[in-house]
Amino acid sequence: MDLHLDLDQDASLPLNTAVADAIRHAIRTGRLRAPDPLPSTRALAAQLAVARGTVTEAYAQLAAEGWIITRQGATTRVARDGDGPPATVEPPAPSRTTAPACWDLRPGVPDTTLFPARTWATAVRAATRSDPEVLGYGEPQGRPELRRVLAGYLNRTRGVTAGPDRILITSGFADALALLATTLRELGLRHIAMEDPCLDVHRRVVTHAGLTIHPVPVDAHGLDITALAATPARVVLATPAHQFPLGATLGPARRRKLVAWARRVDGYIIEDDYDGEYRFDRKPVSALQALDPSRVIYGGTTSKTLAPAMRLGWLALPPRLSRPVTDRVAHQQAPPLDQLALSHLILSGHYDRHIRRTRTEYRRRRDHLIAAGLPLTGIAAGLHALLPVADEEQMIAHARTRSLALMGLGPFWHGRPRGQGLIIGYSRPPVTTAYEALDHLVALMAPADVRPG
Amino acid sequence: MDLHLDLDQDASLPLNTAVADAIRHAIRTGRLRAPDPLPSTRALAAQLAVARGTVTEAYAQLAAEGWIITRQGATTRVARDGDGPPATVEPPAPSRTTAPACWDLRPGVPDTTLFPARTWATAVRAATRSDPEVLGYGEPQGRPELRRVLAGYLNRTRGVTAGPDRILITSGFADALALLATTLRELGLRHIAMEDPCLDVHRRVVTHAGLTIHPVPVDAHGLDITALAATPARVVLATPAHQFPLGATLGPARRRKLVAWARRVDGYIIEDDYDGEYRFDRKPVSALQALDPSRVIYGGTTSKTLAPAMRLGWLALPPRLSRPVTDRVAHQQAPPLDQLALSHLILSGHYDRHIRRTRTEYRRRRDHLIAAGLPLTGIAAGLHALLPVADEEQMIAHARTRSLALMGLGPFWHGRPRGQGLIIGYSRPPVTTAYEALDHLVALMAPADVRPG
Repeated sequence: MDLHLDLDQDASLPLNTAVADAIRHAIRTGRLRAPDPLPSTRALAAQLAVARGTVTEAYAQLAAEGWIITRQGATTRVARDGDGPPATVEPPAPSRTTAPACWDLRPGVPDTTLFPARTWATAVRAATRSDPEVLGYGEPQGRPELRRVLAGYLNRTRGVTAGPDRILITSGFADALALLATTLRELGLRHIAMEDPCLDVHRRVVTHAGLTIHPVPVDAHGLDITALAATPARVVLATPAHQFPLGATLGPARRRKLVAWARRVDGYIIEDDYDGEYRFDRKPVSALQALDPSRVIYGGTTSKTLAPAMRLGWLALPPRLSRPVTDRVAHQQAPPLDQLALSHLILSGHYDRHIRRTRTEYRRRRDHLIAAGLPLTGIAAGLHALLPVADEEQMIAHARTRSLALMGLGPFWHGRPRGQGLIIGYSRPPVTTAYEALDHLVALMAPADVRPG
Repeated sequence: MDLHLDLDQDASLPLNTAVADAIRHAIRTGRLRAPDPLPSTRALAAQLAVARGTVTEAYAQLAAEGWIITRQGATTRVARDGDGPPATVEPPAPSRTTAPACWDLRPGVPDTTLFPARTWATAVRAATRSDPEVLGYGEPQGRPELRRVLAGYLNRTRGVTAGPDRILITSGFADALALLATTLRELGLRHIAMEDPCLDVHRRVVTHAGLTIHPVPVDAHGLDITALAATPARVVLATPAHQFPLGATLGPARRRKLVAWARRVDGYIIEDDYDGEYRFDRKPVSALQALDPSRVIYGGTTSKTLAPAMRLGWLALPPRLSRPVTDRVAHQQAPPLDQLALSHLILSGHYDRHIRRTRTEYRRRRDHLIAAGLPLTGIAAGLHALLPVADEEQMIAHARTRSLALMGLGPFWHGRPRGQGLIIGYSRPPVTTAYEALDHLVALMAPADVRPG
């Protein structure tokens, strides 16, 4: 009876646990099935070069769990089959973010190979060592430590004015938007204006919440305030720092006009500051929220700075909305260990440092495209740039045949497209192949393609 | 110039980073303010017993970040004040789960001092080492790895029948309930029956989603199915394994009747299996879902097994509901690193082991109260038991004066209370003081108090 076992080399596990784990895993994955025989404790101990007592303990543990049957004088056998479906039955569904292509320049995600995994894991570990009270349900609004740290951080980096009591920790911006939309509908604000084009996911979120959408055009200076004022909406969702996906910044005159509009209609501006930390040519413009904290709902996230996988975001709420929105949250949304880990990252300066590091890297990637002659539009900022083309669908199909995944403006228009362009997500490829991907894009783009027809 | 600095002893940090962190922290917390002088590099190096170059590098880093000003030949000074509010302005708000009392026997949370922090942190660390794709937005339904593992686990431990494609990972049960309630309302199911008494948070969640609640009485055999059938509701939220808070198990006859009701009205049963893993006297009854996976929506969570702070839960959805519910989720709700960590815990057997360990501990605590003569009602299961009393408010007030936090049935009735009792959350106190807390409760209870008047 020869049994090949892969022992987990994790030194923190006692050896008998490692042996039991390995056998259990073999049963679970179907390599061992009832009533397969197991080696004698003596034989397995010799094979694994461990003490015989170690194997005896492992077998006792497995027998207690019902995985194996040990009987004095008889061969030890597997008692039952693994209960998970065999690995071959259902291969993991391909994730939506994985392209079949070799290079991927679609927008929306940062380079996750730059994620400070070790720093993060250390911070989570430190958080597990804090007061066990942290592991309870906690406050629906989020950990006070993180709200306090964020109040300072957002003020310092984005000019946001809001005390910790007006900050709500969410699991990302889309969840925050769903919560806002539902609350606003309850308050009688049933119409929402949205930029055209805008992120398609957000359209879906507000529609699900029961709001009626009014698209408002965007030009080189951002949202068209006159067109906004012509809608019946008293709420608008906007990306003032870096319009998604066109890439404009909302100009100073329009900022003032926008806030004046919100006051006039007794309404609110939802500021989606998804990549406000990333401005390459100069200091970022402050958040719109600074102009009127009673009219602007500020939303931010770590999805672009650290990774979408963090599922961490925040809202800075106007005093009037703070209570109605927070009251809708049953339990705190983001795991408190993660919240504590993030506050540690911010307080220790690691977060700022990571942003500086990624900012430098993304600026370099954008500069690389500019230097190669691609006529990118939009401000020097963020994780993506727009490349106007004559026929985006054709370019996307062509690129696909050359193993390059691209995305056009198509899905982001509310109705009829009013332009053709590729949204170049230069942040997405891993740092090891990023410049290869960018060069590949440049090579694909004949000058005739990149001028609007 | 003497500057006291607490260097972070984390050996993974370079020394110059640790020095910079400590100074930055001193500025942020207001211990150093502009234009305070800093020691010379030589003096600080001597004081901290580090190389002078280490301090020079730290100063250079801080100067680059704008925290300090260094000038050749001049004293180095703090350049600006910390931007967080001084620590004294706003002390952390007391968490809702922290009682001012010394002993706390209110229900709803497990003993978080038993949380396997080291195993968890190791699993999170391992997850950060997997494919960086994991750090992206991923599938709204949740990581395929965890859904596959849960399909097997729930089948093995609770008899739940649902493939990975019908499992949705959520951030706890309350969030799942909010999602369900909103979806059901959209599908035209605007009435929901709920057990009376039931968890108050759930009432709030379904009300926010716009459903109308119909309370249904509970007796020693669980939910009254005849009363349920008299309501206009086609959806019911129930706790069949261990009614919260009264503690009954839904009997076999009523289980069959309940499922027949759902078929008859073309409706659904939401099964809140919040503590189904904890049965002390015998093998747990299977989940209701096993009787009819097309009519029962099964919901589970790690909030009672690991800690509420995990913010991890799951639904096993009937085929007809799988798509409508999942379509409402914009992004995966629970952080994927946590999802991978949990699948690792389950596959390696650590999760089962932790449940066995806590089950033994909670059983012991319950037995301790029984042995002391407290006439607990409800089945031998779960994290709480009911202690009928003549006047719960009086007992709670009395216990409070003796530093013991207790909770009564009061908040859980929909309308008029139909009984008086204390819900003894024997799982809550930390293992170090649990028996002290239980003995304290026993000492407080004069025989006259514990019999309903």
